[in-house]
Amino acid sequence: MEKMTISQKILAKHAKKDFVKPGEIILADVDLAFANDVTAPIVIKFVNDLGGVIANKDKIALIPDHFTPNKDINSANQCKIMRDFVKQNNIKHYWESGEVGIEHALLPEQGYIKPGMLIVGADSHTCTHGAFGAFATGMGSSDVGFAFATGKSWFRVPESIKFIINGKRNKWVGGKDFILKIIGTIGVDGALYKSMEFCGSAISELPMDDRMTMCNMAIEAGGKNGIIEADETTINYLKERNIADYEILKSDEDAQYVKIYEFDASNIEPQVAFPHLPENTKGISEIKEDIKIDQAFIGSCTNGRISDLRIAAEILKNNKVAKYVRLIIIPATVEIYKQAMKEGLFDIFLEAGAVISTPTCGPCLGGHMGILADSEVAVSTSNRNFVGRMGSPKSFVYLANPAVVAASAVAGKIINPVEVIK
Amino acid sequence: MEKMTISQKILAKHAKKDFVKPGEIILADVDLAFANDVTAPIVIKFVNDLGGVIANKDKIALIPDHFTPNKDINSANQCKIMRDFVKQNNIKHYWESGEVGIEHALLPEQGYIKPGMLIVGADSHTCTHGAFGAFATGMGSSDVGFAFATGKSWFRVPESIKFIINGKRNKWVGGKDFILKIIGTIGVDGALYKSMEFCGSAISELPMDDRMTMCNMAIEAGGKNGIIEADETTINYLKERNIADYEILKSDEDAQYVKIYEFDASNIEPQVAFPHLPENTKGISEIKEDIKIDQAFIGSCTNGRISDLRIAAEILKNNKVAKYVRLIIIPATVEIYKQAMKEGLFDIFLEAGAVISTPTCGPCLGGHMGILADSEVAVSTSNRNFVGRMGSPKSFVYLANPAVVAASAVAGKIINPVEVIK
Repeated sequence: MEKMTISQKILAKHAKKDFVKPGEIILADVDLAFANDVTAPIVIKFVNDLGGVIANKDKIALIPDHFTPNKDINSANQCKIMRDFVKQNNIKHYWESGEVGIEHALLPEQGYIKPGMLIVGADSHTCTHGAFGAFATGMGSSDVGFAFATGKSWFRVPESIKFIINGKRNKWVGGKDFILKIIGTIGVDGALYKSMEFCGSAISELPMDDRMTMCNMAIEAGGKNGIIEADETTINYLKERNIADYEILKSDEDAQYVKIYEFDASNIEPQVAFPHLPENTKGISEIKEDIKIDQAFIGSCTNGRISDLRIAAEILKNNKVAKYVRLIIIPATVEIYKQAMKEGLFDIFLEAGAVISTPTCGPCLGGHMGILADSEVAVSTSNRNFVGRMGSPKSFVYLANPAVVAASAVAGKIINPVEVIK
Repeated sequence: MEKMTISQKILAKHAKKDFVKPGEIILADVDLAFANDVTAPIVIKFVNDLGGVIANKDKIALIPDHFTPNKDINSANQCKIMRDFVKQNNIKHYWESGEVGIEHALLPEQGYIKPGMLIVGADSHTCTHGAFGAFATGMGSSDVGFAFATGKSWFRVPESIKFIINGKRNKWVGGKDFILKIIGTIGVDGALYKSMEFCGSAISELPMDDRMTMCNMAIEAGGKNGIIEADETTINYLKERNIADYEILKSDEDAQYVKIYEFDASNIEPQVAFPHLPENTKGISEIKEDIKIDQAFIGSCTNGRISDLRIAAEILKNNKVAKYVRLIIIPATVEIYKQAMKEGLFDIFLEAGAVISTPTCGPCLGGHMGILADSEVAVSTSNRNFVGRMGSPKSFVYLANPAVVAASAVAGKIINPVEVIK
């Protein structure tokens, strides 16, 4: 039997085959298909055009997270289409405002994501869920509509690239810096339609939140999916949610990779991606100029989790946001929101002069809750800094980890966290 | 000397006259002029067209509250115009995101409003501040620009209508119900360009928050201003903010009123204003049909203060928001937000399944953070239910007090709070 990577194994299993090879087209059973308020109306139209049948209601989810609480009449009508569909079909996996969170933070937290699953979502950052040793990929809304209707989806089996990160990571360095370093190294098309497999001792030591951040941004290098094999850390995360029914798959030792990259974590410092591409990365110490900021954003499916907020609080404690700078903090889910409040993080944020929003994708995609004006500069924990991504096409977005963003909010310019926490 | 109402006295004093009579045109010194992110850009253009001079920087304020955190590129650019003006002119009375609140809640809370003041704001609900025995009125942006530039404004002295409310108010009845009852009685043009003076034993017993709610909605009856004479309650509110330098003016006993209305508080039950005018009021017990709701909103310059949130919490404790209903709660200022969090109100709101937003005018004026889709129905503590006010022109808004709105969120339909709190 030929050897397979973890991604191949998951696809093979769901296509009911013993082996699949890169480039092969397969039709596979999907374990979970989902959409959000931007994509669901198209998914729903597709489902209705196919006759309105849903293959398995337990295997679909609808999450109104992008422009909620409704930003405007159009977004309100999009949500209404979604809610009406949920009511008509009695869909269980739906969250109303007040319960909802950003899909890629909500689904793992609520126990929907397990190792070995095949997951498709009508959102490009669906690759987040690869952090659990699942194969998860974003698809077009009509593809996800097909998955809703049939329970299946077609895939071209991707080739795999292995990224090995060994060594001990530095203070204020996390999964965000690892993935920015990788994207800076290989470019935004460096993993085009490839599976990005992350491993090594530094990955083993990463908490789940950081693993999700890494897999989340696989798409920013063009990857079909990002994936990390499930281990003790994964199992513990699942145990806390009383999840035991899953199969852990791992890459064969001599599986085929089209490329292997190695990094030493101890050589990676906090990374900043300059406008207007995530590949324009620099180590924080390489930034010599003053980059003054108008807004700092901590949140999104990339870095809006509790550990991100704890890091931000560590920096913001006894500090104040710089005059005329807006620091917007958006916990990714209601659970995270409650937890942060309970731990006293909100007290720190408010004392520092930050804004706390209810969970929403919001400013990350130029949706609402912190849109940039012409010529404004933002530093953000989110995933994309394309032209106009967070507002005006004349604005500038720098991507960084929560520690760098929090420190920069205090300094009023992009700064190394060590400058704020001496 | 002819007798004067409190409104006449304040105008006379600021026009440096011993007497002013209704209908007279006067030029008066303004104590405070302010604008928000919607109106400030026009005010600023007017000021700059006049040469860029500001008469007295201590007597102007700029409050970015309507579409903040920035809803979209246009609102971001509006805020940028405002912020740039503040920076260039070193304006002190400005609040950035993270400090800001809804202007009409923020200014009194921060000690800007005192008895006897003459206040103009480029926002129709500026009349709120009459609750302190001040003359406060909303004006067009160019009028407020004139006040910024010259420190003065012209007024036609209004005639006055006296509203006397005596008697003991019922449980779950507050200032909102008094003012809705009045508007229901006199109509939305019932006090056109008149001063609405509220007095009587039931007014004397009203806390400041409720008085602000009443004066806030004077404009909904067409009033030039709403006003309540300062008393012990007012003085205590000001003492808490270390404010002592003010002069209390009162209406002469035989001052002239074009009309006098009397109400018995004990006959007023919670009021609901039906679409699409605030005058379409019914007592809650008169509503026989089921009015199902999609959204409930507690907030705005009318009812987003701490006492409103406490009432909502009293209803929501150990209750859950109905399935598919969105309950959006927006504390009107950061101080209120912090206080509500500290008192445990947020725990109750979150447990009930409500959304809590950072302070903003938001959905009240169809801005953001809870816009209605076609055919949706909302019950709201805000001040207007005009066609399309909160979103789609095909939506329906009912106005009520915080107790009715919270109870309705739980029931999924408009309901008497006594039905929820037995």
